[in-house]
Amino acid sequence: ARTGDPEVVYGAGKTPEQVAEILATLHARHPDRAVLATRLTDAGLDAAAGVGATLDPVARCATLGPLPEPRGEVLVVAAGTSDAPVAAEAALSARVHGAGVRVVTDVGVAGLHRLLAVRDELERADCLVVVAGMEGALPSVVGGLTGVPLVAVPTSVGYGASLGGVTALLAMLSSCAPGVAVVNVDNGYGAGVHAARVARRAAPRDDVRPTAAAEDRP
Amino acid sequence: ARTGDPEVVYGAGKTPEQVAEILATLHARHPDRAVLATRLTDAGLDAAAGVGATLDPVARCATLGPLPEPRGEVLVVAAGTSDAPVAAEAALSARVHGAGVRVVTDVGVAGLHRLLAVRDELERADCLVVVAGMEGALPSVVGGLTGVPLVAVPTSVGYGASLGGVTALLAMLSSCAPGVAVVNVDNGYGAGVHAARVARRAAPRDDVRPTAAAEDRP
Amino acid sequence: ARTGDPEVVYGAGKTPEQVAEILATLHARHPDRAVLATRLTDAGLDAAAGVGATLDPVARCATLGPLPEPRGEVLVVAAGTSDAPVAAEAALSARVHGAGVRVVTDVGVAGLHRLLAVRDELERADCLVVVAGMEGALPSVVGGLTGVPLVAVPTSVGYGASLGGVTALLAMLSSCAPGVAVVNVDNGYGAGVHAARVARRAAPRDDVRPTAAAEDRP
Amino acid sequence: ARTGDPEVVYGAGKTPEQVAEILATLHARHPDRAVLATRLTDAGLDAAAGVGATLDPVARCATLGPLPEPRGEVLVVAAGTSDAPVAAEAALSARVHGAGVRVVTDVGVAGLHRLLAVRDELERADCLVVVAGMEGALPSVVGGLTGVPLVAVPTSVGYGASLGGVTALLAMLSSCAPGVAVVNVDNGYGAGVHAARVARRAAPRDDVRPTAAAEDRP
Amino acid sequence: ARTGDPEVVYGAGKTPEQVAEILATLHARHPDRAVLATRLTDAGLDAAAGVGATLDPVARCATLGPLPEPRGEVLVVAAGTSDAPVAAEAALSARVHGAGVRVVTDVGVAGLHRLLAVRDELERADCLVVVAGMEGALPSVVGGLTGVPLVAVPTSVGYGASLGGVTALLAMLSSCAPGVAVVNVDNGYGAGVHAARVARRAAPRDDVRPTAAAEDRP
Amino acid sequence: ARTGDPEVVYGAGKTPEQVAEILATLHARHPDRAVLATRLTDAGLDAAAGVGATLDPVARCATLGPLPEPRGEVLVVAAGTSDAPVAAEAALSARVHGAGVRVVTDVGVAGLHRLLAVRDELERADCLVVVAGMEGALPSVVGGLTGVPLVAVPTSVGYGASLGGVTALLAMLSSCAPGVAVVNVDNGYGAGVHAARVARRAAPRDDVRPTAAAEDRP
Amino acid sequence: ARTGDPEVVYGAGKTPEQVAEILATLHARHPDRAVLATRLTDAGLDAAAGVGATLDPVARCATLGPLPEPRGEVLVVAAGTSDAPVAAEAALSARVHGAGVRVVTDVGVAGLHRLLAVRDELERADCLVVVAGMEGALPSVVGGLTGVPLVAVPTSVGYGASLGGVTALLAMLSSCAPGVAVVNVDNGYGAGVHAARVARRAAPRDDVRPTAAAEDRP
Amino acid sequence: ARTGDPEVVYGAGKTPEQVAEILATLHARHPDRAVLATRLTDAGLDAAAGVGATLDPVARCATLGPLPEPRGEVLVVAAGTSDAPVAAEAALSARVHGAGVRVVTDVGVAGLHRLLAVRDELERADCLVVVAGMEGALPSVVGGLTGVPLVAVPTSVGYGASLGGVTALLAMLSSCAPGVAVVNVDNGYGAGVHAARVARRAAPRDDVRPTAAAEDRP
Ligand SMILES: Nc1ncnc2c1ncn2[C@@H]1O[C@H](COP(=O)(O)O)[C@@H](O)[C@H]1O
Ligand SMILES: Nc1ncnc2c1ncn2[C@@H]1O[C@H](COP(=O)(O)O)[C@@H](O)[C@H]1O
Ligand SMILES: Nc1ncnc2c1ncn2[C@@H]1O[C@H](COP(=O)(O)O)[C@@H](O)[C@H]1O
Ligand SMILES: Nc1ncnc2c1ncn2[C@@H]1O[C@H](COP(=O)(O)O)[C@@H](O)[C@H]1O
Ligand SMILES: [Mg+2]
Ligand SMILES: [Mg+2]
Ligand SMILES: [Mg+2]
Ligand SMILES: [Mg+2]
Ligand SMILES: [Mg+2]
Ligand SMILES: [Mg+2]
Ligand SMILES: [Mg+2]
Ligand SMILES: [Mg+2]
Repeated sequence: ARTGDPEVVYGAGKTPEQVAEILATLHARHPDRAVLATRLTDAGLDAAAGVGATLDPVARCATLGPLPEPRGEVLVVAAGTSDAPVAAEAALSARVHGAGVRVVTDVGVAGLHRLLAVRDELERADCLVVVAGMEGALPSVVGGLTGVPLVAVPTSVGYGASLGGVTALLAMLSSCAPGVAVVNVDNGYGAGVHAARVARRAAPRDDVRPTAAAEDRP
Repeated sequence: ARTGDPEVVYGAGKTPEQVAEILATLHARHPDRAVLATRLTDAGLDAAAGVGATLDPVARCATLGPLPEPRGEVLVVAAGTSDAPVAAEAALSARVHGAGVRVVTDVGVAGLHRLLAVRDELERADCLVVVAGMEGALPSVVGGLTGVPLVAVPTSVGYGASLGGVTALLAMLSSCAPGVAVVNVDNGYGAGVHAARVARRAAPRDDVRPTAAAEDRP
Repeated sequence: ARTGDPEVVYGAGKTPEQVAEILATLHARHPDRAVLATRLTDAGLDAAAGVGATLDPVARCATLGPLPEPRGEVLVVAAGTSDAPVAAEAALSARVHGAGVRVVTDVGVAGLHRLLAVRDELERADCLVVVAGMEGALPSVVGGLTGVPLVAVPTSVGYGASLGGVTALLAMLSSCAPGVAVVNVDNGYGAGVHAARVARRAAPRDDVRPTAAAEDRP
Repeated sequence: ARTGDPEVVYGAGKTPEQVAEILATLHARHPDRAVLATRLTDAGLDAAAGVGATLDPVARCATLGPLPEPRGEVLVVAAGTSDAPVAAEAALSARVHGAGVRVVTDVGVAGLHRLLAVRDELERADCLVVVAGMEGALPSVVGGLTGVPLVAVPTSVGYGASLGGVTALLAMLSSCAPGVAVVNVDNGYGAGVHAARVARRAAPRDDVRPTAAAEDRP
Repeated sequence: ARTGDPEVVYGAGKTPEQVAEILATLHARHPDRAVLATRLTDAGLDAAAGVGATLDPVARCATLGPLPEPRGEVLVVAAGTSDAPVAAEAALSARVHGAGVRVVTDVGVAGLHRLLAVRDELERADCLVVVAGMEGALPSVVGGLTGVPLVAVPTSVGYGASLGGVTALLAMLSSCAPGVAVVNVDNGYGAGVHAARVARRAAPRDDVRPTAAAEDRP
Repeated sequence: ARTGDPEVVYGAGKTPEQVAEILATLHARHPDRAVLATRLTDAGLDAAAGVGATLDPVARCATLGPLPEPRGEVLVVAAGTSDAPVAAEAALSARVHGAGVRVVTDVGVAGLHRLLAVRDELERADCLVVVAGMEGALPSVVGGLTGVPLVAVPTSVGYGASLGGVTALLAMLSSCAPGVAVVNVDNGYGAGVHAARVARRAAPRDDVRPTAAAEDRP
Repeated sequence: ARTGDPEVVYGAGKTPEQVAEILATLHARHPDRAVLATRLTDAGLDAAAGVGATLDPVARCATLGPLPEPRGEVLVVAAGTSDAPVAAEAALSARVHGAGVRVVTDVGVAGLHRLLAVRDELERADCLVVVAGMEGALPSVVGGLTGVPLVAVPTSVGYGASLGGVTALLAMLSSCAPGVAVVNVDNGYGAGVHAARVARRAAPRDDVRPTAAAEDRP
Repeated sequence: ARTGDPEVVYGAGKTPEQVAEILATLHARHPDRAVLATRLTDAGLDAAAGVGATLDPVARCATLGPLPEPRGEVLVVAAGTSDAPVAAEAALSARVHGAGVRVVTDVGVAGLHRLLAVRDELERADCLVVVAGMEGALPSVVGGLTGVPLVAVPTSVGYGASLGGVTALLAMLSSCAPGVAVVNVDNGYGAGVHAARVARRAAPRDDVRPTAAAEDRP
């Protein structure tokens, strides 16, 4: 694509045949680059496999062609197990867009000890993707622990007052932690693209500014 | 009032003269009980002082008559300094409705160390009132730290996607911490009443069930 | 769990196999404690029965392991027959979380005589859970009759202007009865947890403050 | 006007001079009929008085010219004292449109004894106008007590989740009491017009069908 | 029921067996009165027929037992052919609640000549039920043609900006024609009940006030 | 401007000095073309007059420089007197953008006779601008009377359920009359631009297709 | 129809049999004019074919009878491939309503070069229909390139914050390009009707005012 | 602060005295670091100047203490002149958080030539902040031109359907350009923080991947 990024097929609303054909066509044009297909049904995953694609069933995604050399590191952090598909879509999207990726799940705000246990990992990343549904509180807590660039992804997990993810979306936009940037509900793909662009351009970690001590805060 | 609670004057939309007159009338009827007035303007506070009331300017409230003997303890926890008026309204309302009260402020989720420092205090209370604006994340974090009954109060602090407190309200209702009960935006009064009713009926602390260890969680 | 409460499996979005497996695993870890599974499909209920769980088909819930000794009493009050599943989820959740429970149904506000007939029962409870859909008026009426701590549960019963339960939710948050605390739409579970925490810590009823006479009100 | 109703001046957004001039012009055309002006500012009321109008300061209305002979009876019932201006607008509007009118205030659902005390009055009316803000529960309770035609008026009294009267509006539209018809927020005028049209055409009370006993209900 | 109205079964969410059983039980209690069942599925209609009920398939309703003697007249006016089920529910509900009923359909505001052709019929009714979806404009036009009491029913006909009937609902509440009272989206039943209560108590038509001439309006 | 249209100054949020200076600058560049300023305060109108502009106080607009030769005809139709400022903004905008303009006001849907009296005028126009607040019904009625291109402008006139003009906006978008195109709330300017572009390019009226007879409709 | 336009059958909610019968009936009445049916299911398309209609499967439409002589030209511009059905409905509707039509697709704002490549075509049209989902940005960009009358159609393409097309709708109504008029979500039909009315009445292109140079803009 | 970022005073709701005092206190603690104050009133700006702060009146901000050495480059792009205050807040915030900053204004989507003229500048930046109100289309267009990380800021510029900035917010979240991350309405501060974190960690430009040619796109 014109922006230097890989081709991506948005699978929602496409037939398995369409998915397979578009994957094959794009792959033939640039066999040395990966093509990504997202939002695939079971049949869409099968059709993708049929043209030789590698499947990520949790993310409901497939890739065809070699992944780029990873540069920098994106860390995907997810609150609950129901958020796993969105986290996986973010991770694969970031990887396909040229970043290295790690994933940490089940670190919701109602179980802080698990989050605090991965605190060093947060600090080592070049960009964070933080995925949470329901009240969408996780980005605020993570954003208070580190100054690494952070993209928040609200998910549609929840019911009633969760409004299909809109509550988590509004909450993340209202975060009291500064610098939290937000993408659409369930948009792991968009978050992965943003994070990969940040991470793959990041300088090596050794010139990172030291974190000021907590007691500095008035 | 019929429910065994003190009389309360809702000051919004009332003239200072009306506030003063209603306070005096209700006090004369039961001089041995406190009357509470909330949502007072500066002039309303002055008028209340003029009939002998005790003022709480942060809470924008006044009381007239002796406060009841405190039974049990309500702990009010507030996220930011802008949430202080709502926290103060909750605290005074709980106190007037018969509970003992303590207040902890500035323990927002983006600064977890301050919250973790008061963890023991949370556990010792008979009921918690948790006040937060913007993304309203604090009740989820507190609710993950303790099993004490918890009432959450969203505040109208914030702008844009905060929707005047509605985002915090929806977030608290969607909390991933179980048992969080919620009152209206800025309704410190309602939270204080609920919490006082719980606390003043609570048995002494020594029969509290021991907290299970963190590693029990699958 | 870390807060001293039993383990709970949220069945929505889980396969029957997942439900059965999680129930069995959690039960094996602490055979002396109950595990609760909620929001089960018919197949999920069957799978739970298959690992020895006790079913509550109205609540769409199952429990595995011995229930705790009941302490205190939660009274669940529901407006209409369509609200029964939510009321049952609240009741079972409260029971599993350590409280004794009673349920009264079909006491909607358009038939006051039925509600007034159970007035004494309301007063004897340690905590009330009030369940209603459509306009969600019942908590206001009950809250005007008693000073017992009250948690309101809006249900998604209704159509059009009921907005899938949001109208009842907003109405309960706007209640003119003081001290009404509210949980998410159809969240019987959350209400049951809050109520159980209140009830199991409540002192015996004999020290309850006498209700002031109705004529006290100005 | 073409529908056989009196002329009405909507004062909102009009200058005092405009209000006075329109009142005088309409009155000159039909000196034997009343003209009604609503939503008047203090200055608008003064200007109306200046052309000889009779003022109703609570309703923020004025009338010029003789009121019609009252036919039938409209009973206006209001929940709280803050609802008084809307109730007064409804009452005067009904009176100007040809009905007799009575008003009962402060009969909110959190104080049922006051409402039950006026139960016979409800039954004697030809049409009810029920005014309430906040959660808007009163029409459901009144509608469960009587089969008299009932128009509900939500008011903008409340804050936060009351959404400026929209919550009461939605609640009234979702009422579980059958036959409740609703007008716009704070629209006492519209309710008064509807109720007067019903009442002034009603047959005398003696042919009213007897109320079935409560125990008939399954 | 306690308000002097017939028993009504709300069929939504009930099994055919439940519908049949409730109809039979209520009918057995008062064989001389009609019972109404609404919102029936095809299977529900069949089950109702199986216990001897009379079906109204357009309205998706059934009645069991003799209809009451009609008193007064309700005229149901519907905008489009898609509004027919709601109009039929209103008509049958009004009839079961004791009024005579006539129905006029396909008189939408984009074809005024059809509406103007029935103008005299509007004037002769004791109460109007006006049913419309999409922009919900019909009540305003009808309300400008006559001073007969008018209940408006928004329907869920439309898409996109029609918001499932909410736009028509809001439009009807905002009507520039005075005295329009509104019920919930698709709530033909509620409109029929209100209209029947008005019509069955109305005095004979001969004492109707003459309509003032159009040129009176300033 | 690049689209061949005149320069327009949006006065909202600009100081009187800024308005005057921009008007003068733009006028100096092309003294033979009109510049339009909209949304002016009283002081803004004065400042515009100070640089020689012609004022339209009802529209809250000013023009500087000669208006173009009028081509074609735009007819602006407004429902109520409160809609006059928006109608005037639409009319002046259309005129400045090159069309001839006529305005008809006070033809609301609750007084059909006034609208029907101007029916021939509707048919003669090259484009219609239909302005209405509250329920926004007028475009549907006008759109049912003629096949002339029609742009609808919702206004913020109304209260409560009118939602500041959003209800009229949604209603117009849901119009049952085909071909109604809509602009933003109170956006007389946008409607005037669209209508002028249509009218100034329209062929002379004599080749207009004859209107089919009403009885053709099935 | 009375406005001089062809008959149109709205297929949504109609059975295939109803569609076929209405098409045949309307066609028999005026065999020399086309009848249009929209929103057809696969079965509806088949049924239409069965009575001799010509199908447009992308648009989900059918026509029966000869199309009118095309006058003027409507250009339909669509952002993405998912917008194709709405674009096709607009195109066919415009054609059936008497205009010539061309369609350009896949010119979304994130690929400006494709849009700029068709710039001359935009300028040559008599009316533009611009179709876009998601953020609905295309009409603003097109409206900045040309002064041709423009109707925007938001589509329901998107998820989460796209709110089923409402975001695109609101965005188009808020367009910073002047003169953009908007129809309902997915309402290709309404846009086609508006555009055809404009185009078929437009004078030949040779008298079009020359576009001012870009550097004129201050 | 704990995240390695400078201290920031949120001026909204603070008195000028409070602003001055907090600035002075924070500055005294770390005289070698800048403190930033945002959302200042005129009086707040004066008070900040009184303690020696440097003012940015367009941004309504002040800084006290030396700015850090700039690392990397943030480019702030704004659509309209009304968006200038938000753009300036973003620019100053990014600068205070350690990045170099440039600003380009008045490049709205309705005037593409101005945007295309700065295309090279977009490509050279390490992070983009794109500010737009009304329909919020600019991020989609910019995001289609470059693969540089992009943060979008919706502003509250607009009226009616713009919903105080919520429409632009939703549009940006729905952007068809991949990788657009969004902050709250008018939150230039948050965007500046995110962008500075990205830019100050970015590697030098010379290793940027070449942009693929436009014709690659299928
Ligand atoms: N701050 C508050 N928020 C909500 N409700 C309140 C508040 N203060 C008082 N009230 C309620 O208002 C009632 C008194 O209203 P009023 O008679 O208007 O003074 C009390 O009985 C309380 O239930
Ligand atoms: N179509 C309807 N829409 C709204 N409410 C209805 C409808 N039909 C019946 N009802 C109400 O539902 C009640 C019966 O509910 P149920 O006991 O669940 O059958 C009746 O008393 C009516 O008030
Ligand atoms: N796709 C469409 N979207 C909106 N309105 C439509 C559409 N197709 C037809 N219509 C309208 O529906 C009317 C016919 O409705 P009906 O009589 O139910 O078939 C036509 O006169 C059109 O005004
Ligand atoms: N313009 C702004 N918008 C949003 N948040 C801000 C803004 N300015 C400052 N803040 C945040 O407000 C915090 C300081 O709040 P306070 O202690 O009330 O001055 C800072 O740490 C920032 O995170
Ligand atoms: Mg979560
Ligand atoms: Mg907070
Ligand atoms: Mg209910
Ligand atoms: Mg009330
Ligand atoms: Mg309609
Ligand atoms: Mg109007
Ligand atoms: Mg698009
Ligand atoms: Mg903009």
